[in-house]
Amino acid sequence: MTDLTLYSMPSSGNSYKVRLLLALLGRPYRHLGMEYESTALAAAHSMGALPLKKLPVLELADGTRIPESNAILCYLADGTDWMPSDPVERALTLGWMFWEQNQHEGVIAVRAAILSYESRRHLRTPERLGELLDRGHALLAIMDEALRTRDWIAIDRPTVADISLYGYTHSAGTKGGFDLARFPAVQAWLARVEALPGHVGLIDIPA
Amino acid sequence: MTDLTLYSMPSSGNSYKVRLLLALLGRPYRHLGMEYESTALAAAHSMGALPLKKLPVLELADGTRIPESNAILCYLADGTDWMPSDPVERALTLGWMFWEQNQHEGVIAVRAAILSYESRRHLRTPERLGELLDRGHALLAIMDEALRTRDWIAIDRPTVADISLYGYTHSAGTKGGFDLARFPAVQAWLARVEALPGHVGLIDIPA
Repeated sequence: MTDLTLYSMPSSGNSYKVRLLLALLGRPYRHLGMEYESTALAAAHSMGALPLKKLPVLELADGTRIPESNAILCYLADGTDWMPSDPVERALTLGWMFWEQNQHEGVIAVRAAILSYESRRHLRTPERLGELLDRGHALLAIMDEALRTRDWIAIDRPTVADISLYGYTHSAGTKGGFDLARFPAVQAWLARVEALPGHVGLIDIPA
Repeated sequence: MTDLTLYSMPSSGNSYKVRLLLALLGRPYRHLGMEYESTALAAAHSMGALPLKKLPVLELADGTRIPESNAILCYLADGTDWMPSDPVERALTLGWMFWEQNQHEGVIAVRAAILSYESRRHLRTPERLGELLDRGHALLAIMDEALRTRDWIAIDRPTVADISLYGYTHSAGTKGGFDLARFPAVQAWLARVEALPGHVGLIDIPA
């Protein structure tokens, strides 16, 4: 029995973030998988289950639906070690999470999506791919600089900001074509996240 | 005397959000204005004052620098009525703020920037402007739908999510060319934000 239901896109890093934190917290949940352009996703839209027209959405026992991956992470982390209780540490954690949605996701995830989804094939121009590559490397350089002076992205302990940024950074090389070898501090951090007890991969979807 | 210093771009909605909340809270602060492409902004970059290479940044008395407009809003709102203490209400508030940075800002603010800044003149193609117009109207429709059932965007009271979304929505018509007349609930909400005691406009910069 569980009181949590996750509307989730199996291939999406935004949905994966939430599945990863749920696994790290050892919290059971019901998984409603709906892939990009699937009839299940169209049905979720038409029944009004997605308040901001996006996945993932976390549904609570009373029917309340929380949208936005990073807001769901904050909700699940509230009162645990994953969300700092100190106001300044919390602000620095949230800062990286807003940056993730404003800067990182729109470049790192978007280049991977253009390369992965056939429906976005028309966006695969050399100019667009080249521009996203350069911008992505500049963003990864900002992460690398931060991770040269500490083990975790926001403060000296793991927080939801690490989970948030791991969501698309872990596949930036394989799916997005970014050159992670240029960012050794990012690579070492990815290995630290993967070594966290309870870590699951993108494809480890609950039955 | 004040313990807060704001690195702020006078023309930017992201910086304005923070100035607006500081005014509503009645908190004094030192304002360091640096416009787009100014030498002051270049100097702030080169002295390493902007952790994520963006404005605004809030500097605390001990020198800690908090980046990202919405993280700064959360920090300032912490412990006040602007940030709900109930976990679900807080998650819904944060959901709209992440959506603002992931969806709204990249369309509503970007179209205004393309139309406002001469350096972005090359982006003013009919295709690009038309696509941003359609996407922006779809985003404003999501806000309008939410604001038809309640007075404030996230819950039934004003929160930092209202301040966050007001930052660029208030000038979506005048600067971005969006047709706000199509969204009466958004227009009524803009008027409610403007009626809040202590409200200041984008151009009301502290001396």
